[in-house]
Amino acid sequence: MPELEPQRIVRLEDDAVVVLDQRRLPGEEVELRCTTSAEVAEAIRVLAVRGAPAIGIAAAYGIALAAGRGEDLDVACETLAASRPTAVNLRWALEAMRDDPTRERAAWIHADEVERCRRMGAHAVELFPPAARVLTHCNAGGLATGGYGTALGAVRAAFEAGRVAHVWVDETRPLLQGARLTAWELEQLAIPHAVIADGAAASFMARGEVDLVVTGADRIAGNGDTANKIGTYGLAVLAAHHAVPLVVVAPTSTLDPTAETAAEIPIEERDPAEVTERFAARNPAFDVTPSSLVTAIVTERGIHRAPYAETLPREAATAR
Amino acid sequence: MPELEPQRIVRLEDDAVVVLDQRRLPGEEVELRCTTSAEVAEAIRVLAVRGAPAIGIAAAYGIALAAGRGEDLDVACETLAASRPTAVNLRWALEAMRDDPTRERAAWIHADEVERCRRMGAHAVELFPPAARVLTHCNAGGLATGGYGTALGAVRAAFEAGRVAHVWVDETRPLLQGARLTAWELEQLAIPHAVIADGAAASFMARGEVDLVVTGADRIAGNGDTANKIGTYGLAVLAAHHAVPLVVVAPTSTLDPTAETAAEIPIEERDPAEVTERFAARNPAFDVTPSSLVTAIVTERGIHRAPYAETLPREAATAR
Repeated sequence: MPELEPQRIVRLEDDAVVVLDQRRLPGEEVELRCTTSAEVAEAIRVLAVRGAPAIGIAAAYGIALAAGRGEDLDVACETLAASRPTAVNLRWALEAMRDDPTRERAAWIHADEVERCRRMGAHAVELFPPAARVLTHCNAGGLATGGYGTALGAVRAAFEAGRVAHVWVDETRPLLQGARLTAWELEQLAIPHAVIADGAAASFMARGEVDLVVTGADRIAGNGDTANKIGTYGLAVLAAHHAVPLVVVAPTSTLDPTAETAAEIPIEERDPAEVTERFAARNPAFDVTPSSLVTAIVTERGIHRAPYAETLPREAATAR
Repeated sequence: MPELEPQRIVRLEDDAVVVLDQRRLPGEEVELRCTTSAEVAEAIRVLAVRGAPAIGIAAAYGIALAAGRGEDLDVACETLAASRPTAVNLRWALEAMRDDPTRERAAWIHADEVERCRRMGAHAVELFPPAARVLTHCNAGGLATGGYGTALGAVRAAFEAGRVAHVWVDETRPLLQGARLTAWELEQLAIPHAVIADGAAASFMARGEVDLVVTGADRIAGNGDTANKIGTYGLAVLAAHHAVPLVVVAPTSTLDPTAETAAEIPIEERDPAEVTERFAARNPAFDVTPSSLVTAIVTERGIHRAPYAETLPREAATAR
């Protein structure tokens, strides 16, 4: 099976953090060289590298780079932390790197993140019915995680187990991470797929053509409320209406034990020009899906089901 | 208040049907001259003119043009009827023009359509709560109807009555009729608005920032099932989940008494390249909202409520 090499997505060279510029995909495969931690923060801010785990990895490499350059690490951590407010992995990676700002530690975070994705995929397979027609939103694939993927890693593991017939790819406006990135990854992995407008998902559910919705997460509160790409919440309501299970796949680093419920998760509002440059617009980048709409949450430790508050905080407390 | 003149949207000149090319809005205001009925059909097919009532008007002018040119009217009607399969107004207008293929008849159809929109708007006002924050999908405005608008006509009438505080404009992928056309009309009418990604609608509903969803319709079955732009059905499920009323505004010519339920309404599947040119895609242009999710259907005759099967077929039978 084709592979999306972790080092192609993000790596640390002698004098730079190098990321595959996801803004240019699928048209071009262009690398962006960030030679300071501020440039890494900028690459995160402009979404050249995106996806909660991938952001954490890039930030970790950014701190290792900063340490090598003799940058003020407090400033570097602050700058990187401010680049995306919703992703909890970013804060986690920065805390780990502050304790041990070495190249080895950053590389370990990267390798560990990929290995965790493989474990999530292995756990998730049993949630896929035979010949599943799966719908996914945004990109929770290798690009988002530094390799393999969370939601898309689960799809991949289930496909390898012969359980996936087709993947519906929400295009995911405004930035089209589905139409640009997830479709690109599925093409590389030779998994049958079709991109649809976000507004068409309900229609395919009503026709009985969706068996499972699988998404990643940017942050999960202690009760299972899940912050993810804008549009996930609507999908969750639609999935519940059509009795289609919704499975969230995310690493334990996404669990935020400091937030008891979604009410405590900050939601980033991005530049309205991403939606339209011509007219007034609003552009919340994430939404929150209440845990009552989530069928299962899969981490590298296993499968969680409601009531999530009984198991998620415990797992979060012992994460890593 | 500013006006979008009906003759700016579509008109019949001596040797051509002239339409404002909606594909070029909002960037440019360019007119397209169609000198044969086949060119009118092509303008409809490529969405230079779109919206069920506007299509019917353009087709009526197309038949008047064809009659003046000595075209075979059977062929002209067939070509025009095949240009968009879902819009029932198109068939209605063609039948009316076959009986009386004159310029006067076509002009009457146009003027009558605009007048009907005004009446729909007047009826719909009472369904708007004070200071309503209204969400609309696609474009059911003056551009879609040859003047004034159905759903957007209702918004306009309610705004003039002081009942509209703000309009959320679903951008409406893949063709962005909301972000391009509805926002353009609202700007002209100086009605406060913000464009949002289709996937963000649920989030604004969850925050309590949507009081009413108003859409047009391309075809309404005898039981109230409503075919409209892809994404409408999902919005209807979301509105019901959040206890937000969903009002459909459409002329009686949209009522299709030959279809008892939505199962009999053909759904046009358009070119996947409208979604993405790079990957496999699916592109249903419409979806069907079951009448159980529709709070009210407003026509030029008044307000219908469930059970729609008791009143819609009677109104359809006496339409025009």
